[in-house]
Amino acid sequence: MKRFSALALPALATALGCAGPAGEPPPAKESALAPSDLVDEALDSGRAYGLLRELVTVAPHRLSGSPGAARAVDWARRTMESIGLQNVRLQKVTVPCWVRGDVERVQIVSPVTEDLPALALGGSIATPRGGVTGEILMVRTPMELEHLRERAKGKVIFFNRPMPRALANTFRAYGAAVPQRTNGASLTASVGGVAALVRSMTTRIDDYPHTGALRYDDDVPPVPAAAISTKAAERIAKLLRSGERVQVKIELSCENRDPAQSANVIGEIPGREKPDEIVLIGGHLDAWDVGHGAHDDGAGIVHCLEAARLLLARGLRPKRTIRVVCFMNEENGLAGGLRYLEECGKEKHVAAIESDRGGFEPKGFNTTARGALRERYTRLLAPLAELGMGTLLPGGGGADIAPLRQNGVPLFGLLPAWHRYFDYHHCDRDRIEAVHPRELQLGAVAVACLAFYLADE
Amino acid sequence: MKRFSALALPALATALGCAGPAGEPPPAKESALAPSDLVDEALDSGRAYGLLRELVTVAPHRLSGSPGAARAVDWARRTMESIGLQNVRLQKVTVPCWVRGDVERVQIVSPVTEDLPALALGGSIATPRGGVTGEILMVRTPMELEHLRERAKGKVIFFNRPMPRALANTFRAYGAAVPQRTNGASLTASVGGVAALVRSMTTRIDDYPHTGALRYDDDVPPVPAAAISTKAAERIAKLLRSGERVQVKIELSCENRDPAQSANVIGEIPGREKPDEIVLIGGHLDAWDVGHGAHDDGAGIVHCLEAARLLLARGLRPKRTIRVVCFMNEENGLAGGLRYLEECGKEKHVAAIESDRGGFEPKGFNTTARGALRERYTRLLAPLAELGMGTLLPGGGGADIAPLRQNGVPLFGLLPAWHRYFDYHHCDRDRIEAVHPRELQLGAVAVACLAFYLADE
Repeated sequence: MKRFSALALPALATALGCAGPAGEPPPAKESALAPSDLVDEALDSGRAYGLLRELVTVAPHRLSGSPGAARAVDWARRTMESIGLQNVRLQKVTVPCWVRGDVERVQIVSPVTEDLPALALGGSIATPRGGVTGEILMVRTPMELEHLRERAKGKVIFFNRPMPRALANTFRAYGAAVPQRTNGASLTASVGGVAALVRSMTTRIDDYPHTGALRYDDDVPPVPAAAISTKAAERIAKLLRSGERVQVKIELSCENRDPAQSANVIGEIPGREKPDEIVLIGGHLDAWDVGHGAHDDGAGIVHCLEAARLLLARGLRPKRTIRVVCFMNEENGLAGGLRYLEECGKEKHVAAIESDRGGFEPKGFNTTARGALRERYTRLLAPLAELGMGTLLPGGGGADIAPLRQNGVPLFGLLPAWHRYFDYHHCDRDRIEAVHPRELQLGAVAVACLAFYLADE
Repeated sequence: MKRFSALALPALATALGCAGPAGEPPPAKESALAPSDLVDEALDSGRAYGLLRELVTVAPHRLSGSPGAARAVDWARRTMESIGLQNVRLQKVTVPCWVRGDVERVQIVSPVTEDLPALALGGSIATPRGGVTGEILMVRTPMELEHLRERAKGKVIFFNRPMPRALANTFRAYGAAVPQRTNGASLTASVGGVAALVRSMTTRIDDYPHTGALRYDDDVPPVPAAAISTKAAERIAKLLRSGERVQVKIELSCENRDPAQSANVIGEIPGREKPDEIVLIGGHLDAWDVGHGAHDDGAGIVHCLEAARLLLARGLRPKRTIRVVCFMNEENGLAGGLRYLEECGKEKHVAAIESDRGGFEPKGFNTTARGALRERYTRLLAPLAELGMGTLLPGGGGADIAPLRQNGVPLFGLLPAWHRYFDYHHCDRDRIEAVHPRELQLGAVAVACLAFYLADE
């Protein structure tokens, strides 16, 4: 990463309009955008970090359908208005409402008595009052479970596949292990097990359980499911290796309630020449109910809001509309992304960018674009190399914008450095203290630049 | 950063020898090195982090001339032997011996009474018993001090230039502000001041003072000097802005003792074809006496030791010798680097690589090489792009290897991500908890690859 003189950008040296504080377009002026133009303000103002502090203070817990989620929606609307976005509005979304109960306990009851750090998986049913007790059957893969099917009836199935830490890309490591969290409960039911325990999704060995969504298949009965910390997982494995039979007791009072009303929050920098053509930038407002969702996805929300503010602060208004969308319900349903497709999918989206990989130092973006289009975008991103953010890798963009792909919209996802992400993901450690102000603020610069380049191309 | 299939490296597909555990060269084999070949072992073994834990346990404080520095020398020698390096030896170095005293107190005595978090600067003389009391004269630059020269006599000169946080490169921000730490005491003496206070070198606003070396000019008398935390600096500035005269009392019992005997620690992977040609990889064993020097420069020492171990573990032995040097006394004298030049400067060094910018995720290297040579090295580094470590920027390498430049040796410095470095640099927070295992371990991969490419070119 270097801080050379701003690169020459003849292709971008177009006449640009400027939006004043009230959003009125002042006289057009000649301009172009080099990332270094935004860096000073982003780093010196510290606004992105300030916004994140506001969000996690106003709504530290904001799982879909919760009072915190409602406060987050209100905060996002007010923030959009205060930074000068136009057409600020709420888009109604019906969301699932899962509530973690007061009782959440996983305990080894034999051959020793030990409480294990645990969290119900999102969407899990409760256990009967008094809990479920059963002997542990440990597996690492669905295939292993299939082989042990005869021993599974009445057991607590313990899925203990670690995220492979030898992989340089932690998201690939996550992808390798996370199906046990998503599918573990239904796999358990399919072999007659009574409950599922899942090793937490992290390469750290520590005492923090990591939650996340499960999915119940329709053709088997639901069974309760919880994640245990990696240390707890190692503890059980050690007992089993020593030849012990391990019995656990699981008590959960979580609950799936009736769907609730919530909203996506939308605001815009209207395009100067082609206001009907849209570059979407977004993240998700909802977060799991442990920690404060500072990285997941407070950072993404703040990246997008601050990106818009940085552009407005410099009086930059591109040819096309930049639309900021704070999606609801990414974590346990994707209702916001689907609702957006339904209501806005017909509009002409030039591209969509999501930030949902945390607030670490940005390395670049991934994209669904291929071939010549990807090459064009690689050239478009070239100025970001000045700040070490110019990488463009193949990838999927993000979950909230994924539904737009069926309409042929090219998707982008911000790629922050990923080695620390799963230390915090979906666990109590995901708090603002885990976010570095400078790293967060540079993410906003990256989003601002790509959005502007795409909207002004 | 991507994890694609290993790049084809025809230029490197040479016959390679393998070093067995005892260092005996086994039969040669065809091989080439892709970074991904080392990543699995680096990340999965966790050895780099384990080595760092050893170092900061054996010798948490290891300023030159201290008992901890002697233990660190012994640890480095034993570690080199245990990982199979050959020709392991100590190179005697005479080092300065500065000792922080038991008394270290900076206190506002008027208009309020408040203790300020402070650390004597390395090399500072003590105050007289009972301390030095004086009115604060605050300046940001030497030029401002020159303008205020008439008001400076008998004052405590307070150098309050912040590291400019708007700069994207924190090392440039450090470079902009650190002369006040190095030269503040002598500037103070030159205008008749009685002591120097310096704002700590960090972009954070917190309670941690950051120490570091000062330099006394011969033509003025030495005066005592200390760093205060950034919060303390802001506190004094606020009192001054409100029109108050601020008096401080400084008490320091630090001491410059007689020079001591210490050593650089050297070990080698002998070259297969040209053992007399050397690629040096190094960092510095000494560290400031606050915190544990985990980033500065425990990480650099571990990068180099683990780089050598990774190459040996894969049986890779390049054409030329890779020499690991753990330098002594980078922080307050550079005696190790100068001694190495004196004793080994005549040997043929193909290149020298230093890691002394912390244990964060590596982005690439800087180099003193220019023009065609730099282009050649850029091609040599290309395989590291696979892991996002392929950047080659202009720069100086590192302080310990800098003396070799006069012999025309091309120098390289590892460039880890730099946004967090000055949060920890030279202060009590520089502990192993601030180092992320995965980030540290990837630094060793980067050093191993560049060293191998240079040694096998």
